Amino acid sequence: MNKDSLKNILDDIASGRISPEKALAEISSAGVADLGFAKIDTSRKERCGFPEFIFGEGKEASHLVSIIRQLDSQKECVLATRISPEQAAAVLKEIPSIHYDSSARILLLNPPSEKRGNIYIVSAGTTDLPVVLEAKYTAEACGCQVTLMQDAGVAGIHRLLSRTEDLRKADVIIAVAGMEGALPSVIGGLVPCPVIAVPTSVGYGANLGGFTAMLAMLNSCASGVTVVNINNGFGAGCAAARIIHSLQQA
Amino acid sequence: MNKDSLKNILDDIASGRISPEKALAEISSAGVADLGFAKIDTSRKERCGFPEFIFGEGKEASHLVSIIRQLDSQKECVLATRISPEQAAAVLKEIPSIHYDSSARILLLNPPSEKRGNIYIVSAGTTDLPVVLEAKYTAEACGCQVTLMQDAGVAGIHRLLSRTEDLRKADVIIAVAGMEGALPSVIGGLVPCPVIAVPTSVGYGANLGGFTAMLAMLNSCASGVTVVNINNGFGAGCAAARIIHSLQQA
Amino acid sequence: MNKDSLKNILDDIASGRISPEKALAEISSAGVADLGFAKIDTSRKERCGFPEFIFGEGKEASHLVSIIRQLDSQKECVLATRISPEQAAAVLKEIPSIHYDSSARILLLNPPSEKRGNIYIVSAGTTDLPVVLEAKYTAEACGCQVTLMQDAGVAGIHRLLSRTEDLRKADVIIAVAGMEGALPSVIGGLVPCPVIAVPTSVGYGANLGGFTAMLAMLNSCASGVTVVNINNGFGAGCAAARIIHSLQQA
Amino acid sequence: MNKDSLKNILDDIASGRISPEKALAEISSAGVADLGFAKIDTSRKERCGFPEFIFGEGKEASHLVSIIRQLDSQKECVLATRISPEQAAAVLKEIPSIHYDSSARILLLNPPSEKRGNIYIVSAGTTDLPVVLEAKYTAEACGCQVTLMQDAGVAGIHRLLSRTEDLRKADVIIAVAGMEGALPSVIGGLVPCPVIAVPTSVGYGANLGGFTAMLAMLNSCASGVTVVNINNGFGAGCAAARIIHSLQQA
Amino acid sequence: MNKDSLKNILDDIASGRISPEKALAEISSAGVADLGFAKIDTSRKERCGFPEFIFGEGKEASHLVSIIRQLDSQKECVLATRISPEQAAAVLKEIPSIHYDSSARILLLNPPSEKRGNIYIVSAGTTDLPVVLEAKYTAEACGCQVTLMQDAGVAGIHRLLSRTEDLRKADVIIAVAGMEGALPSVIGGLVPCPVIAVPTSVGYGANLGGFTAMLAMLNSCASGVTVVNINNGFGAGCAAARIIHSLQQA
Amino acid sequence: MNKDSLKNILDDIASGRISPEKALAEISSAGVADLGFAKIDTSRKERCGFPEFIFGEGKEASHLVSIIRQLDSQKECVLATRISPEQAAAVLKEIPSIHYDSSARILLLNPPSEKRGNIYIVSAGTTDLPVVLEAKYTAEACGCQVTLMQDAGVAGIHRLLSRTEDLRKADVIIAVAGMEGALPSVIGGLVPCPVIAVPTSVGYGANLGGFTAMLAMLNSCASGVTVVNINNGFGAGCAAARIIHSLQQA
Amino acid sequence: MNKDSLKNILDDIASGRISPEKALAEISSAGVADLGFAKIDTSRKERCGFPEFIFGEGKEASHLVSIIRQLDSQKECVLATRISPEQAAAVLKEIPSIHYDSSARILLLNPPSEKRGNIYIVSAGTTDLPVVLEAKYTAEACGCQVTLMQDAGVAGIHRLLSRTEDLRKADVIIAVAGMEGALPSVIGGLVPCPVIAVPTSVGYGANLGGFTAMLAMLNSCASGVTVVNINNGFGAGCAAARIIHSLQQA
Amino acid sequence: MNKDSLKNILDDIASGRISPEKALAEISSAGVADLGFAKIDTSRKERCGFPEFIFGEGKEASHLVSIIRQLDSQKECVLATRISPEQAAAVLKEIPSIHYDSSARILLLNPPSEKRGNIYIVSAGTTDLPVVLEAKYTAEACGCQVTLMQDAGVAGIHRLLSRTEDLRKADVIIAVAGMEGALPSVIGGLVPCPVIAVPTSVGYGANLGGFTAMLAMLNSCASGVTVVNINNGFGAGCAAARIIHSLQQA
Repeated sequence: MNKDSLKNILDDIASGRISPEKALAEISSAGVADLGFAKIDTSRKERCGFPEFIFGEGKEASHLVSIIRQLDSQKECVLATRISPEQAAAVLKEIPSIHYDSSARILLLNPPSEKRGNIYIVSAGTTDLPVVLEAKYTAEACGCQVTLMQDAGVAGIHRLLSRTEDLRKADVIIAVAGMEGALPSVIGGLVPCPVIAVPTSVGYGANLGGFTAMLAMLNSCASGVTVVNINNGFGAGCAAARIIHSLQQA
Repeated sequence: MNKDSLKNILDDIASGRISPEKALAEISSAGVADLGFAKIDTSRKERCGFPEFIFGEGKEASHLVSIIRQLDSQKECVLATRISPEQAAAVLKEIPSIHYDSSARILLLNPPSEKRGNIYIVSAGTTDLPVVLEAKYTAEACGCQVTLMQDAGVAGIHRLLSRTEDLRKADVIIAVAGMEGALPSVIGGLVPCPVIAVPTSVGYGANLGGFTAMLAMLNSCASGVTVVNINNGFGAGCAAARIIHSLQQA
Repeated sequence: MNKDSLKNILDDIASGRISPEKALAEISSAGVADLGFAKIDTSRKERCGFPEFIFGEGKEASHLVSIIRQLDSQKECVLATRISPEQAAAVLKEIPSIHYDSSARILLLNPPSEKRGNIYIVSAGTTDLPVVLEAKYTAEACGCQVTLMQDAGVAGIHRLLSRTEDLRKADVIIAVAGMEGALPSVIGGLVPCPVIAVPTSVGYGANLGGFTAMLAMLNSCASGVTVVNINNGFGAGCAAARIIHSLQQA
Repeated sequence: MNKDSLKNILDDIASGRISPEKALAEISSAGVADLGFAKIDTSRKERCGFPEFIFGEGKEASHLVSIIRQLDSQKECVLATRISPEQAAAVLKEIPSIHYDSSARILLLNPPSEKRGNIYIVSAGTTDLPVVLEAKYTAEACGCQVTLMQDAGVAGIHRLLSRTEDLRKADVIIAVAGMEGALPSVIGGLVPCPVIAVPTSVGYGANLGGFTAMLAMLNSCASGVTVVNINNGFGAGCAAARIIHSLQQA
Repeated sequence: MNKDSLKNILDDIASGRISPEKALAEISSAGVADLGFAKIDTSRKERCGFPEFIFGEGKEASHLVSIIRQLDSQKECVLATRISPEQAAAVLKEIPSIHYDSSARILLLNPPSEKRGNIYIVSAGTTDLPVVLEAKYTAEACGCQVTLMQDAGVAGIHRLLSRTEDLRKADVIIAVAGMEGALPSVIGGLVPCPVIAVPTSVGYGANLGGFTAMLAMLNSCASGVTVVNINNGFGAGCAAARIIHSLQQA
Repeated sequence: MNKDSLKNILDDIASGRISPEKALAEISSAGVADLGFAKIDTSRKERCGFPEFIFGEGKEASHLVSIIRQLDSQKECVLATRISPEQAAAVLKEIPSIHYDSSARILLLNPPSEKRGNIYIVSAGTTDLPVVLEAKYTAEACGCQVTLMQDAGVAGIHRLLSRTEDLRKADVIIAVAGMEGALPSVIGGLVPCPVIAVPTSVGYGANLGGFTAMLAMLNSCASGVTVVNINNGFGAGCAAARIIHSLQQA
Repeated sequence: MNKDSLKNILDDIASGRISPEKALAEISSAGVADLGFAKIDTSRKERCGFPEFIFGEGKEASHLVSIIRQLDSQKECVLATRISPEQAAAVLKEIPSIHYDSSARILLLNPPSEKRGNIYIVSAGTTDLPVVLEAKYTAEACGCQVTLMQDAGVAGIHRLLSRTEDLRKADVIIAVAGMEGALPSVIGGLVPCPVIAVPTSVGYGANLGGFTAMLAMLNSCASGVTVVNINNGFGAGCAAARIIHSLQQA
Repeated sequence: MNKDSLKNILDDIASGRISPEKALAEISSAGVADLGFAKIDTSRKERCGFPEFIFGEGKEASHLVSIIRQLDSQKECVLATRISPEQAAAVLKEIPSIHYDSSARILLLNPPSEKRGNIYIVSAGTTDLPVVLEAKYTAEACGCQVTLMQDAGVAGIHRLLSRTEDLRKADVIIAVAGMEGALPSVIGGLVPCPVIAVPTSVGYGANLGGFTAMLAMLNSCASGVTVVNINNGFGAGCAAARIIHSLQQA
């Protein structure tokens, strides 16, 4: 509960509009829709700028359906990530209007119509596609505008350099790469805007399932590159949306 | 070399203002001041919004002096990080006007006067101070406004919660923590702006020199938190400055 | 063999009630039911307060059946963890009266009726459910009273804070979380009772299958939090039961 | 701020005893003594049963002195861990009445006089002494009674077994061991009370600075053993004190 | 774009043969065939001596077909690695003339006819076969001559020593081994030519999926051994081809 | 080729019994049966005391059949480890007289009849059975006598202590354990004979697939315990046989 | 207490020679000399074939002196490892008759005169000397005969092969190597006796302080090689002595 | 001993020029100068193309002097790496004619005069200098020609691209970089010659002492890049020399 809301309640007590008991209950239960097995965070959009999204991995289909219905009833954009085809099929049977993208492994309902800001997602190779799409869906679910630039890895660096002017126009760039994860370092040296690096698990052996790319990105020689978890297109999309949100306030 | 500059040169050839040979040399040598042992990147501020800063660790004092003088001659703000007292003493003998902060281990010359944006740096404990200071100096060297909020770790979470309203006014928050690194997760759930997490090496044993805090931050349950290297106050400062830069363009 | 039992045998020799040879054999074979492929520890309840429970992973069904029958014949509560549906089906064919919970992956027979103490199990997200249930079944098999509080992760920390008063009434709290594992640190700062942290493998990438949460919990800035193995609801349940056992003695 | 305190304030507003503005300020600043560089958590003893203790590693002596004086003024027991001889000397110059134990690396002021409960600290070897002492000082600072049993490692297991009856009388046992960390497993199989395992960095090579012992303890085949960080005698002491606290409430 | 090509374009502008605008477009788009989802690097053979090869793992079959057709249309040798039988079947339906080797997991089209240089591939055991074959196909796709010497591990070192004279005639040796990875060290001490070590995932447990062999090879006591990624027969083949390429220039 | 054999050949040259050319060929090809895809080490029994055994994991069935036939033709005991049921079925179709044990995953032909020495294999739990069996088959294939003592883990240490006298009669003990791997430390403190520790992958989470037990055993506080790879019953069996071999020579 | 001793005591009770009370005390305190800070294991030689040796690292000099005097009073051979020059100087002041070897970092008193068996210690390089010496002193303190063969690494494998006949005469070989740790694999393929591998920390970077050599040795392709901790010459010496002990019994 | 030398000896026996006994001794002792504490490999130059170089780290000065004198007496180029200033001073006192470079930490005697081939060493930053120098000295000690190109990291990639034409003329390129290690990937995509990547420990935190750069280089998306150990300028120099050696034979 933020200070303004709290102040309002205190004023209400002072003016006798509500009793201290009722105020205490309201303070205690604010911002939660309790489903028993889950506590939906109903004030997240107010606090963070985007509603509670659903991490789908390992969730039972019946739980997914209940959570989606609760969020839908709040008129939120519903985004569920890491949804397997089996989970999706079970949810679609109950909620046929929801959209499922099997490459991105995402369920989507009530996407917002606004498209603010200018986010570029650049990837090193075609195999990074699922992570690129997860980032794209997430940023769009937060009301942002997204442009893709795929397969621009540094082994043929002219592919990237020839697009430098476009990149310099972005508000924020999401750089997606596996293997040695060099892409964000090169991009970071070419542009002034924020660069969010997303390591992917593309590669094998000493790539350690993406850990190598992640470590490399955390050690980027390009100053001011930030990093999210391996394959975490979702996190990158939210981080970019937070930046666009600050831009809108500026 | 960006497309506009290249276009200008091509036009100059077309109009006969310069020969192809001279154009070729100009294209090849643009943006570098070659000191032999080092190649100063003279176009970084144009490309990235801030000049080339100096990573001081392990550099010989004579090299430091030469690089600082070159950057000073370009009228850049000079910032050198990870400078030991011994290195600092040797540099100060040659360049007495430079400022050294022994807590931050930073050398600073020609700091900019503008103070744009609203960056908050929040730390979990008093031992995180050197990292906090490195971030603060860096962001200020990029022309940004910084506010500190120290010792607000989650073991006494009321210290943080009582300041929520202030935090919600920030353009970007840098959250600095060692041990289990929980601070950015809690902050990320309270505010809509970008949150840059800086893991520190504060702690011992299974903290793995800060690696544990770094891993924890990369797995934050708060959506959209991004992470920099361990003790990398410098990187966090640059990342925050990139965001403020985009804000200024918006 | 404890000192009292040993003293009794020695007295029996002194008084001629048994021969030294028979005493030697008795000392050597005490507390074991030897099934050939397994040696059931028949004195564990006397020593530790709870009987030998069965770690089911990788055990052949025929071995499980033999061990369960032996423990059942001793009138012990039988608890077998990490039981796959295939193992469960094979055991149920032989011992139809046993109960199987497929979410908890637990087989249970002869649960005790007493419910001592006041154990709270708090979880960060709905996906932690199997670990929560394993802890609950185990603590109950040790004769303890358990209350659940699910999906109270720190990204929406008001969900936890609004329940602080309840938590402060617990004798012991089991805090279950994956990803960055911040939940026990926050709880540890709110209550005076023991807090047992259980890291789960919920998350992906740099969560390292729960290792990140485990490391984070071991570095908790909240003083006096203790930790068990990843996904080890069983161990947390036993640890809580040991505490309740000491309480009963006090 | 707990619910009772909050309810009192709300009642005060309702009855007009204080204005909403003053109430808001009180709610916001409760439980903190702000020293600028540090925010002392003044309500920790009320919340957790023990006051805020000081993690000394890396703190400047002047900061230590200020924090100690603040806590002393609150009449708290002051305990500072990981204090180097240099830090201790500097503090002693300012606060001569404080006690420093160089083996335990601990500063202590205003120790409590009560000695509740029955905590055993068992160690595997003589080299574990500093960790044993840190645990002992901490538990005593929390008002607990402590007994030591040193050098009882499993390579000569008769040393431990001959003391089984004593161990079975403890309310809680802290088991301290380096190398392969087998001690808590053997103890856990002999007693019904809680066993808190403390891995130490004693050993070399593949002991990985105590990490091996820590991993081994987390995988103990004795059910219900819990673990704290490497060399974390402090954490073990606090955890034991939390258990004794619950015992006192029972 | 290399300097000669750039010089030609600049000369063309100077002579008025092309406009600056057209030159700018040509500079920007050189060396790329843009398929939308992929950017084929059409100048790689000119730059690196071999064309762009395809990393097949995780690529959709339709994408594979498009890329293969594009490279085929450029008359390149097409080599795709890490192709599963399922991927291969789908590609073969569209491009029946392509060759698939299921042991090597490789698709091959338009192999070159020349066989330059003298590359030896020596393996430690028969289980290393897939990696040996990947290296062989790759080197041959680069126009090199390859000889195999299999199952010559150091546990029966006479098998290797009896072939020393043959090994000393090689231009470059690729040494393939799993487990402890000792083979390259022994070979490196017997021959003057370059030795490229390829660790394989053969073994179990502490072999860490080939990581142990890789680390061992990086620490070879034989001076001048170089290493590629685990199971990276492809990389070893390319590295050998680069050496043969330099030999041809010499 | 050993010195005696070499001396014989040199004498033969000196006496004119063979030509230098023929001697050179003999020296070069001694001790190898070359199958093309494999080089069977035909002198291993002479050198090491046991013939070349087969590491079956990942080998093609046709290769297994050829190698087994070659070894059979040399009248060796044939032992192939890590054989899947699928591999076994394919081999049995070609060589029906071979024995397959699916728990041990071993193929066996021509086992020796002698049973020398006195090897004890002690395991911590019933789930360690496959490793116990692999060790047993291997030691027996080397002509050794083996006794099993299963499920004697340290959580109920009386099960082990009651058998101390038997253990003290062994020539060598193989101690098999997963989880925290404490068993060899306790045994090593009770007996004077060699103790070979075998870590198993039994357990989960922070057991790291047996790595934790392996590290713990390498740090045993019991002096003179040696360790083999995770789940490496084969290696332990060979190591024990090497010791029995030295005993026979003594 | 072994079964024979226990039987004697029981017989004494039966015959009335001692009371049950006295017997109980004797059983409980057997085999320990309690120094307060340490419990000397006085029956280790009887149980294990060698007395309790002292792990010196981190022990206070006064503690060392007390322990040495206790062992000396029992007429044991006293061996203390990992003794720094500072510790040695302090001990020598109190016990001038003790011998200190600064390369081996060992203190030695009352070495045995017998020299049983035939142990070879082979090392890869001259830098492995301290580990070689620690193994030699330890094996000799256990009454064994030791021969050294230094600097026989596999990069010049003829140095080792020319000594094969000597190696084949050993009862047990200790193979000491850093870097890639290949030496034991080659030796294991040449001899029938037990091979104990000792990884050393010689090397840098990816040698991980000896961890790489240790992992490599655990994965040796030579069957039946066993491994001790990094730089653990002491453990290798004890393990070899255990084998010689079994030989003496045979 | 190579086949030709062996054949000569065998012919000598056949012709009666030497006795079998003498031949046997010659075969056994060939290629070694035994100094007791060390066995100098006197035939390495014949076998490998360069003499035995000295790994100086941890060697006693007296040992260094003896080895250097032996190699000097064989008229070899003497190169000793990882020599501390203290070691150097001690050696210089005995052998004043030897050269010491404190940046490279190298001792050098009898450098060869020939300068064959064309090796480029490219580094990412000025702090990589010691590794660059170690590689340069080593390659020159092997008789190769070396050119340096320093401080060309990818954060200002125009510094590297402007030198592409020069790089394309190299026979082999050694690419030296710390932090994220991206440099070899970019270079590998620009040139056809062999690229040897040398990771350095430059950086901090998640650079893991150079391990991150090493892992990144092993996962390079540029085909055919090979890697040596961290900071291993020596190994890179030898590897480059092996390539130049093959070039000279071609």
